[in-house]
Amino acid sequence: MADPRISIINERMKEIDSVIAVSSGKGGVGKSLIASTLALSLAKKGCAVGLFDLDFTSPSTHAILGIVDERPKENKGIVPPMVHGLKYMSITYYSHDLATPLRGADVSNALVELLSTTIWGKLNYLILDMPPGMGDATLDAVRFVNNIEFLIVTTSSKLAFETVKKLATLLRELRVPVLGVVENMKMNDSNAIQQETQKLGLKFLEEIPYDSEVEAAIGHSDKLLQTVVADRMNHLCSKILSI
Amino acid sequence: MADPRISIINERMKEIDSVIAVSSGKGGVGKSLIASTLALSLAKKGCAVGLFDLDFTSPSTHAILGIVDERPKENKGIVPPMVHGLKYMSITYYSHDLATPLRGADVSNALVELLSTTIWGKLNYLILDMPPGMGDATLDAVRFVNNIEFLIVTTSSKLAFETVKKLATLLRELRVPVLGVVENMKMNDSNAIQQETQKLGLKFLEEIPYDSEVEAAIGHSDKLLQTVVADRMNHLCSKILSI
Repeated sequence: MADPRISIINERMKEIDSVIAVSSGKGGVGKSLIASTLALSLAKKGCAVGLFDLDFTSPSTHAILGIVDERPKENKGIVPPMVHGLKYMSITYYSHDLATPLRGADVSNALVELLSTTIWGKLNYLILDMPPGMGDATLDAVRFVNNIEFLIVTTSSKLAFETVKKLATLLRELRVPVLGVVENMKMNDSNAIQQETQKLGLKFLEEIPYDSEVEAAIGHSDKLLQTVVADRMNHLCSKILSI
Repeated sequence: MADPRISIINERMKEIDSVIAVSSGKGGVGKSLIASTLALSLAKKGCAVGLFDLDFTSPSTHAILGIVDERPKENKGIVPPMVHGLKYMSITYYSHDLATPLRGADVSNALVELLSTTIWGKLNYLILDMPPGMGDATLDAVRFVNNIEFLIVTTSSKLAFETVKKLATLLRELRVPVLGVVENMKMNDSNAIQQETQKLGLKFLEEIPYDSEVEAAIGHSDKLLQTVVADRMNHLCSKILSI
Protein backbone atom coordinates (compact mmCIF):
# COMPACT_ATOMS: atom_id res chain seq x y z
CA MET A 1 0.00 0.00 0.00
CA ALA A 2 1.25 3.47 -0.80
CA ASP A 3 2.35 5.55 2.18
CA PRO A 4 -0.68 7.78 2.94
CA ARG A 5 1.63 10.59 4.03
CA ILE A 6 2.94 11.02 0.47
CA SER A 7 -0.43 12.20 -0.82
CA ILE A 8 -0.56 15.01 1.71
CA ILE A 9 2.93 16.40 0.97
CA ASN A 10 1.72 18.57 -1.89
CA GLU A 11 -1.33 19.59 0.11
CA ARG A 12 1.05 20.81 2.83
CA MET A 13 3.17 22.69 0.29
CA LYS A 14 0.41 24.13 -1.87
CA GLU A 15 0.94 27.71 -0.71
CA ILE A 16 4.59 27.70 -1.75
CA ASP A 17 5.15 29.51 -5.06
CA SER A 18 8.57 28.08 -5.85
CA VAL A 19 10.70 25.22 -4.50
CA ILE A 20 14.42 25.50 -5.27
CA ALA A 21 16.55 22.45 -4.48
CA VAL A 22 20.18 23.53 -4.05
CA SER A 23 22.21 20.53 -5.06
CA SER A 24 25.69 19.44 -6.11
CA GLY A 25 27.32 16.42 -7.68
CA LYS A 26 29.70 16.03 -4.75
CA GLY A 27 30.15 17.40 -1.26
CA GLY A 28 32.40 20.23 -0.17
CA VAL A 29 31.56 22.68 -2.95
CA GLY A 30 29.77 25.15 -0.66
CA LYS A 31 26.23 24.00 -1.40
CA SER A 32 24.91 24.62 2.13
CA LEU A 33 26.53 28.04 2.26
CA ILE A 34 24.95 28.96 -1.07
CA ALA A 35 21.55 27.63 0.04
CA SER A 36 21.72 29.57 3.32
CA THR A 37 22.93 32.79 1.75
CA LEU A 38 20.40 32.56 -1.09
CA ALA A 39 17.60 32.15 1.45
CA LEU A 40 18.85 35.11 3.52
CA SER A 41 19.19 37.28 0.41
CA LEU A 42 15.68 36.48 -0.85
CA ALA A 43 14.26 37.26 2.60
CA LYS A 44 16.16 40.55 2.67
CA LYS A 45 14.50 41.48 -0.61
CA GLY A 46 11.12 41.09 1.09
CA CYS A 47 10.19 37.57 -0.01
CA ALA A 48 8.59 35.05 2.33
CA VAL A 49 11.26 32.35 2.46
CA GLY A 50 11.69 28.93 4.02
CA LEU A 51 14.97 27.03 4.32
CA PHE A 52 14.81 23.27 4.74
CA ASP A 53 18.02 21.36 5.41
CA LEU A 54 17.60 17.90 3.92
CA ASP A 55 21.30 17.11 3.75
CA PHE A 56 21.24 14.19 6.15
CA THR A 57 24.82 13.29 5.08
CA SER A 58 26.20 16.39 6.79
CA PRO A 59 23.55 18.90 7.81
CA SER A 60 25.27 22.23 8.31
CA THR A 61 22.88 25.14 7.67
CA HIS A 62 22.21 25.41 11.43
CA ALA A 63 25.95 25.88 11.99
CA ILE A 64 26.23 28.31 9.05
CA LEU A 65 23.35 30.45 10.30
CA GLY A 66 24.29 30.16 13.98
CA ILE A 67 21.01 28.51 14.99
CA VAL A 68 21.27 27.24 18.53
CA ASP A 69 18.07 27.25 20.58
CA GLU A 70 15.33 27.76 18.03
CA ARG A 71 13.14 24.69 17.75
CA PRO A 72 9.99 23.89 15.79
CA LYS A 73 6.67 23.79 17.63
CA GLU A 74 3.91 21.25 17.29
CA ASN A 75 0.48 22.52 16.34
CA LYS A 76 -1.46 20.04 14.15
CA GLY A 77 1.88 19.51 12.42
CA ILE A 78 5.35 20.99 12.81
CA VAL A 79 5.68 24.76 12.75
CA PRO A 80 9.19 25.88 11.76
CA PRO A 81 10.80 28.57 13.91
CA MET A 82 11.47 31.99 12.39
CA VAL A 83 15.22 32.55 12.29
CA HIS A 84 16.96 35.59 10.75
CA GLY A 85 13.78 36.29 8.80
CA LEU A 86 13.46 32.72 7.48
CA LYS A 87 11.21 29.82 8.35
CA TYR A 88 13.77 27.18 9.20
CA MET A 89 13.57 23.40 9.31
CA SER A 90 16.29 20.79 9.39
CA ILE A 91 16.52 17.04 9.27
CA THR A 92 18.59 17.39 12.48
CA TYR A 93 15.33 18.14 14.32
CA TYR A 94 14.34 14.62 13.34
CA SER A 95 17.66 12.84 13.90
CA HIS A 96 18.36 15.01 16.98
CA ASP A 97 21.90 15.43 15.68
CA LEU A 98 22.82 11.95 16.86
CA ALA A 99 26.10 10.51 15.69
CA THR A 100 24.20 7.37 14.73
CA PRO A 101 23.36 7.81 11.06
CA LEU A 102 20.05 7.17 9.40
CA ARG A 103 20.07 4.10 7.15
CA GLY A 104 18.60 4.32 3.63
CA ALA A 105 15.01 3.39 4.49
CA ASP A 106 15.13 5.67 7.54
CA VAL A 107 16.25 8.58 5.40
CA SER A 108 13.25 8.11 3.12
CA ASN A 109 11.02 7.79 6.14
CA ALA A 110 12.40 10.96 7.78
CA LEU A 111 12.02 12.86 4.53
CA VAL A 112 8.40 11.82 4.03
CA GLU A 113 7.63 12.51 7.68
CA LEU A 114 9.13 16.01 7.57
CA LEU A 115 7.65 16.92 4.19
CA SER A 116 4.20 15.73 5.19
CA THR A 117 4.08 17.33 8.64
CA THR A 118 5.86 20.69 8.27
CA ILE A 119 3.48 23.63 8.08
CA TRP A 120 5.21 26.20 5.89
CA GLY A 121 2.14 28.30 5.19
CA LYS A 122 2.45 30.92 2.49
CA LEU A 123 5.95 31.21 1.02
CA ASN A 124 7.39 32.78 -2.10
CA TYR A 125 10.41 30.48 -1.98
CA LEU A 126 11.29 27.28 -0.21
CA ILE A 127 15.01 26.57 -0.47
CA LEU A 128 15.98 22.93 0.03
CA ASP A 129 19.57 22.13 0.97
CA MET A 130 19.85 18.71 -0.65
CA PRO A 131 22.40 15.96 0.06
CA PRO A 132 25.17 15.93 -2.57
CA GLY A 133 24.72 13.59 -5.54
CA MET A 134 21.66 11.60 -6.46
CA GLY A 135 20.95 9.45 -3.45
CA ASP A 136 17.68 8.21 -2.05
CA ALA A 137 16.71 11.54 -0.48
CA THR A 138 17.12 13.41 -3.76
CA LEU A 139 15.18 10.82 -5.74
CA ASP A 140 12.44 10.91 -3.12
CA ALA A 141 12.26 14.72 -3.14
CA VAL A 142 11.95 14.68 -6.93
CA ARG A 143 9.15 12.13 -6.71
CA PHE A 144 7.21 13.72 -3.88
CA VAL A 145 7.51 17.48 -4.40
CA ASN A 146 5.66 19.03 -7.34
CA ASN A 147 7.31 21.90 -9.22
CA ILE A 148 10.74 21.32 -7.73
CA GLU A 149 13.56 23.09 -9.59
CA PHE A 150 17.27 22.47 -9.12
CA LEU A 151 20.12 24.90 -8.66
CA ILE A 152 23.44 23.11 -9.09
CA VAL A 153 26.56 24.24 -7.24
CA THR A 154 30.06 23.27 -8.36
CA THR A 155 33.62 24.43 -7.83
CA SER A 156 36.10 25.02 -10.66
CA SER A 157 37.52 21.53 -10.12
CA LYS A 158 37.34 18.92 -12.89
CA LEU A 159 36.32 16.29 -10.36
CA ALA A 160 33.43 18.40 -9.08
CA PHE A 161 32.24 19.15 -12.59
CA GLU A 162 32.38 15.48 -13.63
CA THR A 163 29.81 14.82 -10.92
CA VAL A 164 27.69 17.76 -12.14
CA LYS A 165 27.50 16.07 -15.55
CA LYS A 166 26.06 12.95 -13.96
CA LEU A 167 23.58 14.90 -11.88
CA ALA A 168 22.48 16.95 -14.90
CA THR A 169 22.05 13.81 -17.00
CA LEU A 170 19.88 12.17 -14.39
CA LEU A 171 17.77 15.28 -13.81
CA ARG A 172 17.21 15.52 -17.57
CA GLU A 173 16.12 11.87 -17.66
CA LEU A 174 13.73 12.55 -14.80
CA ARG A 175 12.51 15.72 -16.59
CA VAL A 176 13.27 17.88 -13.58
CA PRO A 177 13.89 21.55 -14.45
CA VAL A 178 17.31 23.00 -13.65
CA LEU A 179 17.58 26.75 -13.03
CA GLY A 180 21.28 26.65 -13.75
CA VAL A 181 24.78 26.24 -12.37
CA VAL A 182 26.71 28.35 -9.85
CA GLU A 183 30.52 28.10 -9.83
CA ASN A 184 31.78 28.59 -6.28
CA MET A 185 35.25 29.19 -4.78
CA LYS A 186 36.69 30.23 -8.12
CA MET A 187 40.43 30.83 -7.85
CA ASN A 188 41.38 31.49 -11.46
CA ASP A 189 40.25 33.29 -14.61
CA SER A 190 39.31 30.23 -16.62
CA ASN A 191 35.84 30.11 -18.11
CA ALA A 192 36.02 26.33 -18.57
CA ILE A 193 33.12 25.63 -16.19
CA GLN A 194 30.96 28.22 -17.93
CA GLN A 195 31.66 26.58 -21.30
CA GLU A 196 31.11 23.06 -19.98
CA THR A 197 27.84 24.15 -18.37
CA GLN A 198 26.60 25.53 -21.67
CA LYS A 199 27.63 22.29 -23.41
CA LEU A 200 25.28 20.50 -21.02
CA GLY A 201 22.49 22.80 -22.20
CA LEU A 202 22.32 24.46 -18.79
CA LYS A 203 22.39 28.13 -17.85
CA PHE A 204 25.56 29.42 -16.16
CA LEU A 205 24.09 31.62 -13.45
CA GLU A 206 26.89 33.03 -11.36
CA GLU A 207 30.55 32.70 -10.44
CA ILE A 208 31.69 33.35 -6.90
CA PRO A 209 35.37 34.06 -6.26
CA TYR A 210 37.05 32.27 -3.38
CA ASP A 211 36.60 34.42 -0.30
CA SER A 212 38.84 33.78 2.69
CA GLU A 213 36.51 35.90 4.87
CA VAL A 214 33.72 33.32 4.68
CA GLU A 215 35.18 30.97 7.29
CA ALA A 216 35.05 33.68 9.98
CA ALA A 217 31.44 34.52 9.01
CA ILE A 218 30.20 30.96 9.57
CA GLY A 219 27.69 31.05 12.41
CA HIS A 220 26.95 34.77 12.04
CA SER A 221 24.19 35.58 9.58
CA ASP A 222 24.95 39.32 9.70
CA LYS A 223 28.60 38.76 8.76
CA LEU A 224 27.56 36.27 6.08
CA LEU A 225 25.56 39.00 4.38
CA GLN A 226 28.75 41.04 4.03
CA THR A 227 30.75 38.38 2.21
CA VAL A 228 31.46 38.12 -1.51
CA VAL A 229 29.21 35.06 -1.53
CA ALA A 230 26.27 37.16 -0.30
CA ASP A 231 27.05 39.86 -2.84
CA ARG A 232 26.90 37.32 -5.67
CA MET A 233 23.80 35.65 -4.22
CA ASN A 234 22.14 39.04 -4.05
CA HIS A 235 22.89 39.37 -7.75
CA LEU A 236 21.48 35.89 -8.39
CA CYS A 237 18.32 36.73 -6.43
CA SER A 238 17.59 39.60 -8.77
CA LYS A 239 17.88 37.17 -11.70
CA ILE A 240 15.64 34.60 -9.99
CA LEU A 241 13.03 37.23 -9.07
CA SER A 242 12.88 38.41 -12.67
CA ILE A 243 12.27 34.90 -14.09
CA MET B 1 18.81 -16.12 6.39
CA ALA B 2 22.17 -14.41 6.52
CA ASP B 3 23.67 -13.56 3.15
CA PRO B 4 26.12 -16.47 2.49
CA ARG B 5 28.47 -14.05 0.68
CA ILE B 6 29.23 -12.21 3.92
CA SER B 7 30.94 -15.20 5.47
CA ILE B 8 33.40 -15.43 2.58
CA ILE B 9 34.45 -11.75 2.63
CA ASN B 10 37.11 -12.29 5.26
CA GLU B 11 38.21 -15.51 3.58
CA ARG B 12 38.77 -13.47 0.41
CA MET B 13 40.71 -10.83 2.34
CA LYS B 14 42.74 -13.08 4.62
CA GLU B 15 46.07 -12.41 2.89
CA ILE B 16 45.77 -8.64 3.40
CA ASP B 17 47.93 -7.42 6.28
CA SER B 18 46.22 -4.07 6.81
CA VAL B 19 42.98 -2.46 5.63
CA ILE B 20 42.94 1.35 5.82
CA ALA B 21 39.57 3.04 5.21
CA VAL B 22 40.17 6.65 4.14
CA SER B 23 37.11 8.54 5.30
CA SER B 24 35.80 12.02 6.03
CA GLY B 25 32.86 13.58 7.78
CA LYS B 26 31.80 15.43 4.67
CA GLY B 27 32.63 15.47 0.99
CA GLY B 28 35.00 17.77 -0.83
CA VAL B 29 37.88 17.61 1.63
CA GLY B 30 40.21 15.73 -0.73
CA LYS B 31 39.57 12.25 0.64
CA SER B 32 39.85 10.49 -2.74
CA LEU B 33 43.01 12.38 -3.61
CA ILE B 34 44.57 11.41 -0.26
CA ALA B 35 43.49 7.78 -0.68
CA SER B 36 44.93 7.62 -4.21
CA THR B 37 48.18 9.36 -3.31
CA LEU B 38 48.63 7.29 -0.16
CA ALA B 39 48.19 4.10 -2.20
CA LEU B 40 50.70 5.29 -4.85
CA SER B 41 53.20 6.30 -2.17
CA LEU B 42 52.99 2.98 -0.33
CA ALA B 43 53.45 1.13 -3.64
CA LYS B 44 56.47 3.29 -4.46
CA LYS B 45 58.01 2.23 -1.16
CA GLY B 46 57.81 -1.39 -2.30
CA CYS B 47 54.59 -2.47 -0.56
CA ALA B 48 51.98 -4.64 -2.26
CA VAL B 49 48.99 -2.29 -2.34
CA GLY B 50 45.37 -2.42 -3.41
CA LEU B 51 43.09 0.58 -3.88
CA PHE B 52 39.34 0.01 -3.71
CA ASP B 53 37.00 2.90 -4.51
CA LEU B 54 33.84 2.36 -2.48
CA ASP B 55 32.67 5.97 -2.69
CA PHE B 56 29.46 5.28 -4.58
CA THR B 57 28.33 8.88 -3.89
CA SER B 58 30.99 10.27 -6.22
CA PRO B 59 33.62 7.74 -7.23
CA SER B 60 36.63 9.67 -8.47
CA THR B 61 39.85 7.69 -7.96
CA HIS B 62 39.67 6.48 -11.58
CA ALA B 63 39.64 10.13 -12.71
CA ILE B 64 42.40 11.09 -10.25
CA LEU B 65 44.67 8.26 -11.37
CA GLY B 66 43.78 8.59 -15.06
CA ILE B 67 42.42 5.06 -15.36
CA VAL B 68 40.65 4.64 -18.68
CA ASP B 69 40.76 1.20 -20.24
CA GLU B 70 41.92 -1.07 -17.47
CA ARG B 71 39.19 -3.49 -16.44
CA PRO B 72 39.02 -6.34 -13.94
CA LYS B 73 39.06 -9.92 -15.28
CA GLU B 74 36.92 -12.81 -14.18
CA ASN B 75 38.69 -15.92 -12.98
CA LYS B 76 36.79 -17.73 -10.20
CA GLY B 77 36.10 -14.24 -8.90
CA ILE B 78 37.10 -10.75 -9.98
CA VAL B 79 40.78 -10.06 -10.52
CA PRO B 80 41.59 -6.33 -10.21
CA PRO B 81 43.77 -4.82 -12.94
CA MET B 82 47.28 -3.62 -12.06
CA VAL B 83 47.41 0.16 -12.55
CA HIS B 84 50.40 2.38 -11.74
CA GLY B 85 51.74 -0.38 -9.48
CA LEU B 86 48.43 -0.83 -7.62
CA LYS B 87 45.73 -3.47 -7.72
CA TYR B 88 42.72 -1.32 -8.51
CA MET B 89 38.99 -1.89 -8.04
CA SER B 90 36.09 0.52 -8.09
CA ILE B 91 32.40 0.41 -7.44
CA THR B 92 32.08 2.00 -10.90
CA TYR B 93 32.93 -1.41 -12.38
CA TYR B 94 29.72 -2.57 -10.76
CA SER B 95 27.53 0.45 -11.49
CA HIS B 96 29.17 0.86 -14.94
CA ASP B 97 29.35 4.59 -14.21
CA LEU B 98 25.65 4.99 -14.98
CA ALA B 99 24.00 8.25 -14.09
CA THR B 100 21.26 6.24 -12.40
CA PRO B 101 22.29 6.02 -8.76
CA LEU B 102 22.27 2.95 -6.56
CA ARG B 103 19.54 3.04 -3.90
CA GLY B 104 20.39 2.11 -0.29
CA ALA B 105 19.78 -1.64 -0.51
CA ASP B 106 21.60 -1.76 -3.86
CA VAL B 107 24.63 -0.05 -2.34
CA SER B 108 24.81 -2.72 0.37
CA ASN B 109 24.35 -5.40 -2.25
CA ALA B 110 27.07 -3.96 -4.51
CA LEU B 111 29.44 -3.68 -1.56
CA VAL B 112 28.90 -7.27 -0.42
CA GLU B 113 29.17 -8.51 -4.00
CA LEU B 114 32.46 -6.68 -4.62
CA LEU B 115 33.99 -7.54 -1.24
CA SER B 116 33.07 -11.21 -1.56
CA THR B 117 34.20 -11.71 -5.16
CA THR B 118 37.35 -9.58 -5.54
CA ILE B 119 40.54 -11.62 -5.48
CA TRP B 120 43.18 -9.34 -3.95
CA GLY B 121 45.69 -12.07 -3.16
CA LYS B 122 48.61 -11.09 -0.94
CA LEU B 123 48.69 -7.40 -0.03
CA ASN B 124 50.48 -5.37 2.60
CA TYR B 125 47.86 -2.62 2.40
CA LEU B 126 44.37 -2.33 1.02
CA ILE B 127 43.28 1.32 0.89
CA LEU B 128 39.51 1.84 0.81
CA ASP B 129 38.18 5.16 -0.50
CA MET B 130 34.99 5.38 1.58
CA PRO B 131 31.91 7.52 0.95
CA PRO B 132 31.91 10.64 3.15
CA GLY B 133 30.08 10.43 6.47
CA MET B 134 28.59 7.36 8.09
CA GLY B 135 26.16 6.00 5.53
CA ASP B 136 25.12 2.46 4.81
CA ALA B 137 28.29 1.57 2.91
CA THR B 138 30.53 2.66 5.78
CA LEU B 139 28.47 0.79 8.38
CA ASP B 140 28.53 -2.29 6.17
CA ALA B 141 32.28 -2.11 5.63
CA VAL B 142 32.80 -1.84 9.39
CA ARG B 143 30.59 -4.88 9.97
CA PHE B 144 31.99 -7.08 7.23
CA VAL B 145 35.71 -6.34 7.12
CA ASN B 146 37.85 -7.55 10.02
CA ASN B 147 40.74 -5.39 11.18
CA ILE B 148 39.58 -2.29 9.34
CA GLU B 149 41.24 0.93 10.54
CA PHE B 150 40.14 4.46 9.66
CA LEU B 151 42.14 7.42 8.45
CA ILE B 152 40.07 10.59 8.68
CA VAL B 153 40.58 13.49 6.27
CA THR B 154 39.38 17.02 7.03
CA THR B 155 40.05 20.55 5.86
CA SER B 156 40.72 23.48 8.21
CA SER B 157 37.03 24.47 8.02
CA LYS B 158 34.86 24.46 11.14
CA LEU B 159 32.05 22.83 9.20
CA ALA B 160 34.29 20.00 8.03
CA PHE B 161 35.63 19.42 11.53
CA GLU B 162 32.15 19.37 13.07
CA THR B 163 31.42 16.36 10.87
CA VAL B 164 34.73 14.75 11.91
CA LYS B 165 33.56 14.90 15.53
CA LYS B 166 30.43 12.94 14.64
CA LEU B 167 32.36 10.38 12.64
CA ALA B 168 34.91 9.95 15.43
CA THR B 169 32.15 9.54 18.03
CA LEU B 170 30.43 6.85 16.03
CA LEU B 171 33.67 4.98 15.27
CA ARG B 172 34.47 5.02 18.99
CA GLU B 173 31.02 3.63 19.79
CA LEU B 174 31.56 0.89 17.21
CA ARG B 175 35.07 0.26 18.65
CA VAL B 176 36.71 0.76 15.26
CA PRO B 177 40.36 1.84 15.48
CA VAL B 178 41.28 5.22 14.00
CA LEU B 179 44.86 5.75 12.80
CA GLY B 180 44.42 9.50 13.01
CA VAL B 181 43.44 12.69 11.25
CA VAL B 182 44.96 14.41 8.20
CA GLU B 183 44.28 18.14 7.69
CA ASN B 184 44.14 18.90 3.97
CA MET B 185 44.13 22.14 1.93
CA LYS B 186 45.45 24.17 4.85
CA MET B 187 45.57 27.86 3.97
CA ASN B 188 46.59 29.41 7.29
CA ASP B 189 48.94 28.92 10.26
CA SER B 190 46.30 28.03 12.84
CA ASN B 191 46.76 24.82 14.78
CA ALA B 192 43.08 24.70 15.77
CA ILE B 193 42.41 21.43 13.94
CA GLN B 194 45.43 19.81 15.54
CA GLN B 195 44.21 20.85 19.00
CA GLU B 196 40.63 19.79 18.33
CA THR B 197 41.87 16.43 17.02
CA GLN B 198 43.82 15.83 20.19
CA LYS B 199 40.74 16.79 22.26
CA LEU B 200 38.91 13.96 20.52
CA GLY B 201 41.67 11.62 21.69
CA LEU B 202 42.86 11.08 18.13
CA LYS B 203 46.32 11.35 16.63
CA PHE B 204 46.99 14.34 14.36
CA LEU B 205 48.96 12.68 11.57
CA GLU B 206 49.74 15.27 8.95
CA GLU B 207 48.88 18.69 7.59
CA ILE B 208 48.90 19.34 3.87
CA PRO B 209 49.09 22.92 2.63
CA TYR B 210 46.75 23.99 -0.16
CA ASP B 211 48.51 23.28 -3.43
CA SER B 212 47.22 24.98 -6.58
CA GLU B 213 49.27 22.54 -8.71
CA VAL B 214 47.08 19.59 -7.75
CA GLU B 215 44.24 20.40 -10.15
CA ALA B 216 46.57 20.12 -13.16
CA ALA B 217 47.92 16.81 -11.84
CA ILE B 218 44.49 15.17 -11.69
CA GLY B 219 44.48 12.26 -14.13
CA HIS B 220 48.28 11.96 -14.24
CA SER B 221 49.72 9.67 -11.58
CA ASP B 222 53.30 10.73 -12.37
CA LYS B 223 52.47 14.43 -11.86
CA LEU B 224 50.49 13.59 -8.72
CA LEU B 225 53.64 12.12 -7.21
CA GLN B 226 55.35 15.51 -7.60
CA THR B 227 52.72 17.50 -5.68
CA VAL B 228 52.90 18.73 -2.11
CA VAL B 229 50.15 16.23 -1.31
CA ALA B 230 52.38 13.35 -2.42
CA ASP B 231 55.30 14.76 -0.44
CA ARG B 232 53.19 14.80 2.74
CA MET B 233 51.71 11.37 1.98
CA ASN B 234 55.21 10.03 1.53
CA HIS B 235 55.96 11.35 5.00
CA LEU B 236 52.77 9.76 6.35
CA CYS B 237 53.70 6.42 4.73
CA SER B 238 56.93 6.34 6.71
CA LYS B 239 54.90 6.82 9.89
CA ILE B 240 52.40 4.12 8.90
CA LEU B 241 55.16 1.68 7.96
CA SER B 242 56.84 2.17 11.32
CA ILE B 243 53.64 1.44 13.33
